[in-house]
Amino acid sequence: MAVVTVERKVLKKNEMVAGENRKIFGDKGIFTLNLLSSPGSGKTSLLEKTLESLSGRLNLAVVEGDVQTDNDAQRISAYDVPVVQIVTNGGCHLEAKLVQDALPNFNLDQLDFLIIENVGNLVCPANYDLGEHKKVVLISTTEGDDKPLKYPAMFRVADLMIINKIDLLQYVDFNLEKVIENARQINPNLEIISLSCRTGENLKEWISWLETQKIK
Amino acid sequence: MAVVTVERKVLKKNEMVAGENRKIFGDKGIFTLNLLSSPGSGKTSLLEKTLESLSGRLNLAVVEGDVQTDNDAQRISAYDVPVVQIVTNGGCHLEAKLVQDALPNFNLDQLDFLIIENVGNLVCPANYDLGEHKKVVLISTTEGDDKPLKYPAMFRVADLMIINKIDLLQYVDFNLEKVIENARQINPNLEIISLSCRTGENLKEWISWLETQKIK
Repeated sequence: MAVVTVERKVLKKNEMVAGENRKIFGDKGIFTLNLLSSPGSGKTSLLEKTLESLSGRLNLAVVEGDVQTDNDAQRISAYDVPVVQIVTNGGCHLEAKLVQDALPNFNLDQLDFLIIENVGNLVCPANYDLGEHKKVVLISTTEGDDKPLKYPAMFRVADLMIINKIDLLQYVDFNLEKVIENARQINPNLEIISLSCRTGENLKEWISWLETQKIK
Repeated sequence: MAVVTVERKVLKKNEMVAGENRKIFGDKGIFTLNLLSSPGSGKTSLLEKTLESLSGRLNLAVVEGDVQTDNDAQRISAYDVPVVQIVTNGGCHLEAKLVQDALPNFNLDQLDFLIIENVGNLVCPANYDLGEHKKVVLISTTEGDDKPLKYPAMFRVADLMIINKIDLLQYVDFNLEKVIENARQINPNLEIISLSCRTGENLKEWISWLETQKIK
């Protein structure tokens, strides 16, 4: 019982700080995304492709969340965008306060987009609002089409589901229609884009989606 | 600070119950495995192949842990083994008490093996001892060879790492030597088996490993 109470307090505190973040992003006109998935679904690869496509045209910044290592920030730093690595040291999700603490590292007045790559975890990050405008969940074709039913919280809070690794569809037992049906059963309003970061197939649709979200 | 204290108490309580479980498994001569991985790495598929191979020869039982649905227990029930589904209702890991509560559903005197399939999560379940003899972590070739470095706690506590989906190696950017090097950097004593549940390649090595663990 004590644990539940503390957990509620933690969540309540997080929501308060997320509200502060949301106000900052709103005031500065920065569209902010929370990128979520299991480990290895392709969040960093999607980011790389996005930066290849958009950098120079739009002012992007990235917050990398990882349990350990700054490998992802190193990958992102190859592109000409500001990136801050948050290492959670074993923590299973990002919290609004961690993101807030990262913000002074950016020149917020010059940003159009902030993309936050969360810790690879299809369970815990679903409960922690970071103050973002939209949550994007990635699922790859190698993970099985039953995942939205098995991890419903994440798909319930997501605004967009990206089905990645469609280049592998012919080699795996994954039914594209089934995963969409399962996801929409959990969240009827979910937007869905299928693509392959590896081959670049249909990346255009994701880039267009992102561009239409620009605030200022 | 309060949160840390509660978390420590939760873990301490869990370790106590895990100790009770370990005593039960020892007294009954039941070799017990804790099967861990990200969502979609192939835990249930490995179980299916294992049951195909071993049922009739050895007395196995299965505990299925899932955030939601009893899909996995349904899949396992197609085989002639006792299976209990634990639905955590959003909880991100199994705890020793949940496993202990499942045990009265089995005829423990008749069991040689108990395999516990944990919730799909490469972070949180690493901290929760269930009283098992060994922890087996699955990683699939579609998840990236950097994962042991990025989620070190799980690979540090594991006894055996199974690299699944080696049938997809030619279609993905995954270096088998690199993942082994990364995993051994975290845990020099880690045993490693590469296989494909889909094609059956090298499953024999896993079955042999399992058979040699038999206690009674």
